[in-house]
Amino acid sequence: MSPSADASEPLPTSSIDPDDGAIAKLFAVLLAGEYAAFYRLVAESSMAPDEDAGIAIARMATSEFAHYEMLAEQVTRRGLDPVESVVRYRKVFDQYHDATTPKTWLEALVKAYVADGLAADFYNELSQMLPASVREVVASVMAETGNSQFARDHVNAAIAADPDLRSPLTLWGRRLLGEAVTHTQWVLAAEDDVMDLLFAGASSLHGVADFFETVSARHAQRMADLGLG
Amino acid sequence: MSPSADASEPLPTSSIDPDDGAIAKLFAVLLAGEYAAFYRLVAESSMAPDEDAGIAIARMATSEFAHYEMLAEQVTRRGLDPVESVVRYRKVFDQYHDATTPKTWLEALVKAYVADGLAADFYNELSQMLPASVREVVASVMAETGNSQFARDHVNAAIAADPDLRSPLTLWGRRLLGEAVTHTQWVLAAEDDVMDLLFAGASSLHGVADFFETVSARHAQRMADLGLG
Repeated sequence: MSPSADASEPLPTSSIDPDDGAIAKLFAVLLAGEYAAFYRLVAESSMAPDEDAGIAIARMATSEFAHYEMLAEQVTRRGLDPVESVVRYRKVFDQYHDATTPKTWLEALVKAYVADGLAADFYNELSQMLPASVREVVASVMAETGNSQFARDHVNAAIAADPDLRSPLTLWGRRLLGEAVTHTQWVLAAEDDVMDLLFAGASSLHGVADFFETVSARHAQRMADLGLG
Repeated sequence: MSPSADASEPLPTSSIDPDDGAIAKLFAVLLAGEYAAFYRLVAESSMAPDEDAGIAIARMATSEFAHYEMLAEQVTRRGLDPVESVVRYRKVFDQYHDATTPKTWLEALVKAYVADGLAADFYNELSQMLPASVREVVASVMAETGNSQFARDHVNAAIAADPDLRSPLTLWGRRLLGEAVTHTQWVLAAEDDVMDLLFAGASSLHGVADFFETVSARHAQRMADLGLG
């Protein structure tokens, strides 16, 4: 059976209990990711060339923290502690960020754009596997803010001005995807019940393969948006 | 005439035109302060001992940036550019922050608490001198968020645990006020029309004296809240 045939079958999401403890844990993982994203975005903005860029990054970081607050409310309602969730799950995100520390402002912009999009894809794929009531929470977290338009415009302009930038930034984009996939798999491997929650509806191996295939396809589109790939 | 006699007379705020160009400029100054506060709070949070503290600082920083966004809307509506406003006015705030770089996490917490309060006082004093329609904007920017409760609780607990911390942190608090007053005066001296706007209602010298006297009195109360002074 091809992955695309699998993907066309609706997943039996309604069989998942909205109060499943694994949903709380999934939200706790995502919350730690938003916390890490807030601080990394601001740290990486130290390379920002001007105030225009500084404002755009502050806006993106603020949006990540708003997501944190939404998830913290959900996590608390489901009986987990947001602070303990950050303590427990931030390490894998810190490792991802350590493995993808940008060396130039353009690398930082590509990372901000790609990470924002990967997170949105990830939330989107997740929402399709979850009960309707939980789906709404995920949808509001991932709501498009248009904040990454700034990154897209600037990367496109930089490549137009200097086509030699295209090749190294394309490699950088591939590395960002590779590291994101690797680190996501680490989280899933460590949290069996979250893995089961996400991929219980499909034959597990195909479900995982489809998931990463969809994310990769969207990443390729985003690279094209940036004028890369 | 004593300053307190001056303070009891209502200022003739209604004589100020809500579209006065100096109001746009005042908002532009405040906006640059919020931008600087966002980045300094996050930078100074590198000393945060744990995730609980990291979350509290991210929450305060996010709130500063929300103020930035509100002021940016006002500044834009009044014909100025928010980015150019940051470029033009951030320097004096950066100088303030450079002059008050905390050396310990407790100094960072005292600074966060004191600066948050000083900013609220400043907005509050301002709002009384401005036309009613503008006052509402200032009031919404300064709205109490309760974000600095975290700083208060932690400083109080630290001093209770080690009373020797009281004296150096009290000196630190005095320095924070002194630098804030000095830097505010620099801004006002450089922007005659903003100075005129703020203190036109009262005999200028008394108006300025009252302003800083009120801010100092509230600062003393805040130091007491922290268990200092």
